[in-house]
Amino acid sequence: MTTNRKMRLGLLSRNTGAHIASWLSPETQASAAGDLSYYIKMVQTAERGKFDFFFETDSPGIATDNMVTWSRNGFRHTKFEPLTLLSVLSASTTHLGLGGTMSTTFNEPYNVARAFASLDLITGGRGGWNVVTTANDYAARNFGLDKLPPHDERYERAYEFVEVVRKLWDTYEDDAFIWNRETSQYIDPDKFHPLEHDGKFFKVHGAIASMRSPQGQPVIFQAGASNAGRDFAAATADVVFGSARDLTKAQALYKDIKTRMLKFGRDPDDLKLLPGLSMVLADSAEEAEQRYQALQDLVHPDVMRQTLQEDLEMNLRDFPLDEPIPEDKLPEKANQHEAYFNYLTNLIRTEKPTLRQLFHHWSNRGRNVFCGTPKQAADLMEQFFTSEAADGFMISFQTMPQQLDLFVDTVIPDLQRRGLFRTEYEGKTLRENLGLKRPKNSYLK
Amino acid sequence: MTTNRKMRLGLLSRNTGAHIASWLSPETQASAAGDLSYYIKMVQTAERGKFDFFFETDSPGIATDNMVTWSRNGFRHTKFEPLTLLSVLSASTTHLGLGGTMSTTFNEPYNVARAFASLDLITGGRGGWNVVTTANDYAARNFGLDKLPPHDERYERAYEFVEVVRKLWDTYEDDAFIWNRETSQYIDPDKFHPLEHDGKFFKVHGAIASMRSPQGQPVIFQAGASNAGRDFAAATADVVFGSARDLTKAQALYKDIKTRMLKFGRDPDDLKLLPGLSMVLADSAEEAEQRYQALQDLVHPDVMRQTLQEDLEMNLRDFPLDEPIPEDKLPEKANQHEAYFNYLTNLIRTEKPTLRQLFHHWSNRGRNVFCGTPKQAADLMEQFFTSEAADGFMISFQTMPQQLDLFVDTVIPDLQRRGLFRTEYEGKTLRENLGLKRPKNSYLK
Repeated sequence: MTTNRKMRLGLLSRNTGAHIASWLSPETQASAAGDLSYYIKMVQTAERGKFDFFFETDSPGIATDNMVTWSRNGFRHTKFEPLTLLSVLSASTTHLGLGGTMSTTFNEPYNVARAFASLDLITGGRGGWNVVTTANDYAARNFGLDKLPPHDERYERAYEFVEVVRKLWDTYEDDAFIWNRETSQYIDPDKFHPLEHDGKFFKVHGAIASMRSPQGQPVIFQAGASNAGRDFAAATADVVFGSARDLTKAQALYKDIKTRMLKFGRDPDDLKLLPGLSMVLADSAEEAEQRYQALQDLVHPDVMRQTLQEDLEMNLRDFPLDEPIPEDKLPEKANQHEAYFNYLTNLIRTEKPTLRQLFHHWSNRGRNVFCGTPKQAADLMEQFFTSEAADGFMISFQTMPQQLDLFVDTVIPDLQRRGLFRTEYEGKTLRENLGLKRPKNSYLK
Repeated sequence: MTTNRKMRLGLLSRNTGAHIASWLSPETQASAAGDLSYYIKMVQTAERGKFDFFFETDSPGIATDNMVTWSRNGFRHTKFEPLTLLSVLSASTTHLGLGGTMSTTFNEPYNVARAFASLDLITGGRGGWNVVTTANDYAARNFGLDKLPPHDERYERAYEFVEVVRKLWDTYEDDAFIWNRETSQYIDPDKFHPLEHDGKFFKVHGAIASMRSPQGQPVIFQAGASNAGRDFAAATADVVFGSARDLTKAQALYKDIKTRMLKFGRDPDDLKLLPGLSMVLADSAEEAEQRYQALQDLVHPDVMRQTLQEDLEMNLRDFPLDEPIPEDKLPEKANQHEAYFNYLTNLIRTEKPTLRQLFHHWSNRGRNVFCGTPKQAADLMEQFFTSEAADGFMISFQTMPQQLDLFVDTVIPDLQRRGLFRTEYEGKTLRENLGLKRPKNSYLK
């Protein structure tokens, strides 16, 4: 055990909170999703708490069938696009990393490379890209397709996509810019490296006009949980979000990812694994549970069905809430979130829950919601962090913003007293704060 | 003549200046292109001058052959991506519009619709999209192609692209967001309009999760000068940049665009035509000319050749500087900037300039560079504005930033005294300041 090892914390952006009914709670601001000033306060609080980064998820598609149900599905209805949001938020923060999602299935690598290179320059080296293949048929239909490309093909494309993006980020060596007025040379031409890429999915012969940022390349985030996703993360990611329902499973995932890294020739320290941890904090564990139950009671039955049917990849509209889901109606295999689908169908086959029970399970422990006191939260985090189950956490709150303030005012100082978390930012860039090396330009011998 | 009519002014973003050798001038900061603080000062000066908007051009590709020449081609080497740049600059300004370029040839309409909708929300209704088809084979090679698609096909795609984007911007009616906690309805489902588009280039069945901004839709900018480009602008643009070399030509363009609007059923007042005007200001016209000549003398011969060969679409590497360009070597027709190509080849055939002479002409009067005193600049602007040649101007400066400061301190107050330019911003949104109507949601009867 290294004694200097510090926890890394990311804040998952969720405007009114991670709970699907959070916008219905009197302690949230229902209209937060479209309110930039709300986001500015959120990131400033995160920076006050010395979080490593703020993180914006994304999917290029929303549901468009069954409008009445969808109209109840609060915070998905208006959402800032990640790159524009992170860019404007960078003006209100100094140290906080800013990570955002962009899909490899529905973009071109040249455009993604430029956008994140620019974010990284604008933020002085605080940018990060969450690489996702997008598991959502609604997105496919926005890009000329009827369904998503198959899971394995999406990952095959993603590998090549990341390779191209990283090569483009290395277009200029760090000292390529010389601005020599006497020889009329803005750059040293020997330090300019256009890409010649001819692959299965992409042909890119060119260069991006973007110098490297102080951190060299934006941080690469990933969250794949399937077999292909874990390999992809082990091969290419700097930070990985796990979904860990208990300590044993988190340890297994941790070991699995770090072991997979070896086959790609990577040092396990070069990847930080951050299990997701969503919280309800209160003065007592009972009160926290009650707060959570009060949120669960706000969920409209239409929303229960819709939440489950997305991950089960089937239509539940006519299924009664208080009867088990018939096993013979389940699809044979997943095409979207494979890990979610397998978990849920296995549970239906073994425990035969009613639809309502399954919803409560899935939106609660299934999604790793912690209810407890600030001290209990710090205890749990310490346990995971010191038991080879986590390098830190991807934090969210079931309601916002008061719970974030509470966390920053109670859990953070406790972790600092325990010597588990920074009291000052270590560096200027996100990589420096995360304890990650600055990547060498791949064109250098 | 309406007496209340005011000039509209856009500031073209050019870090060290619009002159190709501006970065070599001792009065500029050679490294400005990668310096966000430089841009922040620039937009704050523009806002002090009550400019309508700041405008960032873009092309998703840079030259990658002939590196030694290219290494001399200053300000194209590092460049912030427009959406990230405009987003962060919005935090340093309050009234200034923020327009940026994104190509219809190398993007998907769903992604473009989301990015600009988000910019427009983040800026409180100050966003604008410059629709370009991209006339640059270097860009094509970044997206799997060897050459650009043909000119007419690019425009055909652009029409459909803009149609899809505008429909997506209308996904939600203005009053769709009700946040009703009692009925558990975040939006009114009857005011949510997913798109069902099956066209020649795009199939888009979905919706963007983005409420409309205070200005309804981002402002649409365009700059096409070809026949197809003019029709496209007349059909779809809110603001058009012309390239007007003298008053008579500017009047002809003005009349042409406004007349073309009629065939698309549009009111000519609904489009603002802004000829480009690039300046060298000094205490006397002679001094301004000398300043300009000093910049021309800084241009390296390699750069002269490269500048011309891009617009002539041919390789000039081995051509002597002081001999005429042989007419029989010219390509038969343009595939990139049709209007530039036709102008230059016509000049070569009729006036037989040497390569050096052609460069000086093209980079000077050919590009509409004005050299003179602040009063002469105001006179010229008044003449164009009051003679049905311009609704305002797209301003750039041959060197920055002092020339911008000088313009704001001298030409702007002069125009204000003449009653031709605002003394306070008229509204909060870019459309309000430009005097453009807020577009009605197209799904409303």
